[in-house]
Amino acid sequence: MKDASYKPHERLGAHLTAELDAVNTLIRERMASKHAPRIPEVTAHLVEAGGKRLRPMLTLAAARLCGYDGPYHIHLAATVEFIHTATLLHDDVVDESAQRRGRPTANLLWDNKSSVLVGDYLFSRSFQLMTETGSIDVLRILSNASATIAEGEVLQLTAAQDLKTDEDIYLQVVRGKTAALFSAATEVGGVIAGADPAHVQALFDYGDALGISFQIVDDLLDYWGGDATGKNIGDDFRERKLTLPLIKAVAKGDDEERAFWTRTIERGRQEEGDLEHALALLNKHNALEETRQEALAWSEKAKTAMETLPQDPIRDMLIDIADYVVARVN
Amino acid sequence: MKDASYKPHERLGAHLTAELDAVNTLIRERMASKHAPRIPEVTAHLVEAGGKRLRPMLTLAAARLCGYDGPYHIHLAATVEFIHTATLLHDDVVDESAQRRGRPTANLLWDNKSSVLVGDYLFSRSFQLMTETGSIDVLRILSNASATIAEGEVLQLTAAQDLKTDEDIYLQVVRGKTAALFSAATEVGGVIAGADPAHVQALFDYGDALGISFQIVDDLLDYWGGDATGKNIGDDFRERKLTLPLIKAVAKGDDEERAFWTRTIERGRQEEGDLEHALALLNKHNALEETRQEALAWSEKAKTAMETLPQDPIRDMLIDIADYVVARVN
Repeated sequence: MKDASYKPHERLGAHLTAELDAVNTLIRERMASKHAPRIPEVTAHLVEAGGKRLRPMLTLAAARLCGYDGPYHIHLAATVEFIHTATLLHDDVVDESAQRRGRPTANLLWDNKSSVLVGDYLFSRSFQLMTETGSIDVLRILSNASATIAEGEVLQLTAAQDLKTDEDIYLQVVRGKTAALFSAATEVGGVIAGADPAHVQALFDYGDALGISFQIVDDLLDYWGGDATGKNIGDDFRERKLTLPLIKAVAKGDDEERAFWTRTIERGRQEEGDLEHALALLNKHNALEETRQEALAWSEKAKTAMETLPQDPIRDMLIDIADYVVARVN
Repeated sequence: MKDASYKPHERLGAHLTAELDAVNTLIRERMASKHAPRIPEVTAHLVEAGGKRLRPMLTLAAARLCGYDGPYHIHLAATVEFIHTATLLHDDVVDESAQRRGRPTANLLWDNKSSVLVGDYLFSRSFQLMTETGSIDVLRILSNASATIAEGEVLQLTAAQDLKTDEDIYLQVVRGKTAALFSAATEVGGVIAGADPAHVQALFDYGDALGISFQIVDDLLDYWGGDATGKNIGDDFRERKLTLPLIKAVAKGDDEERAFWTRTIERGRQEEGDLEHALALLNKHNALEETRQEALAWSEKAKTAMETLPQDPIRDMLIDIADYVVARVN
């Protein structure tokens, strides 16, 4: 019955319409503040900006897939979206970003202060929401995920411009900045449903691998581009961010290449033509293709984990999402 | 047996030495990060700076006062200190502060990015710690307090330079920025001990009133000064912060005075001699004395609440702390 003209996350969204509506209602209710109208203003700017709601959808899908029929997957999905929104607000302050989802960032429209404090408010609100579920297991998973996210972001601060950053450190950063919330989103869906430990583990593995694949594709497209991603080729290079393609090229570089990376990434002294030279080095060492292969391998891991769960239309949509994440580079 | 030569929080600290040591050990253990050494560096700068540990001490005292003999008041005291440290890190970014406790701030020594992200890490760590207690009640209280703190900070952003800010709004801000963590600190001590609801309420009321009194004294000393507070008279005026003394003077001012406040606070166009004129207006309207009376009244409320708890040396030290908070203006 699946309609190939829709993207898989859109099909999943259609399948979960009623629950997503309940999540959106709860988000709007909980982002309100009786005393500080600045809070819903800033939050609405991000929350209503038309994100895909992929993370809350993963929680709803995991809970449904495990046969949950209680009310708390709605709370958990809203929790996950609040944590995501809080990290976006803080990320944009940290990265001094001016644009997000094609619109000016909150730190630009209001100020850094508002972004920091409204982010803190949403973090707190997310903990209130998960507390309402009454499940200590859920609280443990989500507070661990929050710590991993923050740790990954701090690690990125110091690792991004350090040529000693290797693929292991890259993976830790990616788990922090992206995969930890994906895996927590799917895991808590299973936990709230009381799923058996093997299924909970499979949900975690799916979210973890999906998140890693998602982030590697994002980092690859920064050099690959050419399609309608809306990103400019080389943004990460200009911002001196060591991502997987560069890490692979640096590892294989000779002394002269190393001097080039030291100047452009570590010291940030970039000149006309440097991006073109960086792209040539990436090609010379086959770094983009190897990065692409890793994204595909993580997507396969996600699918393999999901296939251990019982047959269900939701399961198949989650598998399709793992394919879709790498479709832009496949 | 009480030694009048010690300050009451020092006597309480001496009474709770073993438990405070355990709290400090747990704090050092949990502020570590395997992957991101920046985290313990930044955290240690604040945590080891010789703060009084008043908030964690309140939690330990409340638990002991209610006969608790389990291990989790240590976790809760560390939780409270982590939340406090996280808010200090974010406050210094928001206020663009250069000094805290007589030392350069973390945002100055490292950067705003580190302060934002390490603060997020400590928030997450605090939620992990409270989750380990297994008490949903405790989680509810502390997540509510966190939301109140963040809401109070956002409210302050918009209220501080707005002459429409009245005493009710001031009280909301103070509850957010100071009293919410005091009252949560004492309340969770009672809750983890399984104290009866009347005692838990009294502990909450004590923390709430103590925190409000503490903040009003702080705001008063900004104009009162003269003693060894280390603060410069008029910092809040120069930073255009409407605190209780100013709010009282503004409310009683005539049109000419109102124009003065509009220029200096709302528009921030301050000139030589403005602070002296502001101080003269505060005196004219008896605003400092009235503010002092409010601080004393909140201190009395704290003592009255504490006196409903059973006789105990710890109870008496907590009562003495409520006296001590206003001793600087009494």
